[in-house]
Amino acid sequence: MLTIVIAEAELELVPEEALNEKCVLESAKKRGKSAKEILLDSSYHHNAEVCRSGRRGRPDIVHITLQVLQESLLNNIGELRVFVHTRNDEVIYVDPETRLPKNYNRFCGLIEKLFKDKAIKADKELLRIEHKSIEDLLKELGGEKILMHPEGARLSEHKRIGDVVAVIGGFPHGDFYRNYNLERFRIGDVELTTWATAMEVLCWYAHK
Amino acid sequence: MLTIVIAEAELELVPEEALNEKCVLESAKKRGKSAKEILLDSSYHHNAEVCRSGRRGRPDIVHITLQVLQESLLNNIGELRVFVHTRNDEVIYVDPETRLPKNYNRFCGLIEKLFKDKAIKADKELLRIEHKSIEDLLKELGGEKILMHPEGARLSEHKRIGDVVAVIGGFPHGDFYRNYNLERFRIGDVELTTWATAMEVLCWYAHK
Repeated sequence: MLTIVIAEAELELVPEEALNEKCVLESAKKRGKSAKEILLDSSYHHNAEVCRSGRRGRPDIVHITLQVLQESLLNNIGELRVFVHTRNDEVIYVDPETRLPKNYNRFCGLIEKLFKDKAIKADKELLRIEHKSIEDLLKELGGEKILMHPEGARLSEHKRIGDVVAVIGGFPHGDFYRNYNLERFRIGDVELTTWATAMEVLCWYAHK
Repeated sequence: MLTIVIAEAELELVPEEALNEKCVLESAKKRGKSAKEILLDSSYHHNAEVCRSGRRGRPDIVHITLQVLQESLLNNIGELRVFVHTRNDEVIYVDPETRLPKNYNRFCGLIEKLFKDKAIKADKELLRIEHKSIEDLLKELGGEKILMHPEGARLSEHKRIGDVVAVIGGFPHGDFYRNYNLERFRIGDVELTTWATAMEVLCWYAHK
């Protein structure tokens, strides 16, 4: 079994301090929602103070990465588990059978509903969110734990023995905020996006 | 070199016969554009007659697949070329250095501009579209040509000799409309999305 943890993902509702930003109010109005119900999205809220660093408000990264993971062959044969840990120490449990909306705007609507209702259920629970630190999440998970990091050793030269838990940053650039006492591995010599890293980890897991 | 051709992609501007559909007019108005300038998108135009089959209007498939391909390690090391062939026999040339918008709505805006201007240029040409049949495109491309198809042989048991051109359907379900006189390969025993297939082809190419 391979477990992927997307860590410190830049996924959050518009935070308190940005609720009155003009760009936030405008995009909330356009969608017929209140500012506190919508996801922070740097594509629309880049003028807001919280987005100035160019790091926060990236539901698009989570969307593309989850499409890559959930639709993968490995998930289809029942060998993958996926968790999204957010910058605010929440953990989203993604059921392996969950097929997420391919359309980005529908995905954002679903995640907004998840933040509100704490779970998305159909015949069974497809998504659940709860407050949990990454340390507590990692304690629950079994397998060799590795951190994907550009300063790590080359993953392709590492041979796995059994189950693996791979932690991949869910942010666009910069480093992790938290300390991870885990062995570090990199893919190649260029920094890759979250989903490109996830793809390479899946490929490595299947072949090593 | 690996070349990926996304074939018969369901990517098109709103066709003539759907220009007066209510859902089309509404979504065009919302975006401050005319109906003939916007992409057909089944997420918003599912009530339009042309979308009834559940096949047409899938720019989301092209977006996610191009994110997977353009951001991949293989592309980063200069070993990948990508073409998008559409249902209307247009071919989009994607420069390997092109980094497409991660945000879906911005991506759609860019593709709409591409349909209008026929090319997107920055320092160099990043995207270009022209009328061309898939047969003519394939004639231009060098390497072993394969068609990804659920009825093909298992790709993992096939050993590549040199360059490969892999044709992958860019539609959500059903079969290709055109005939491809190419050797067929499948990934596994379940049908995968366009991008999950592309991921597996990249992984196979790197390891076989």
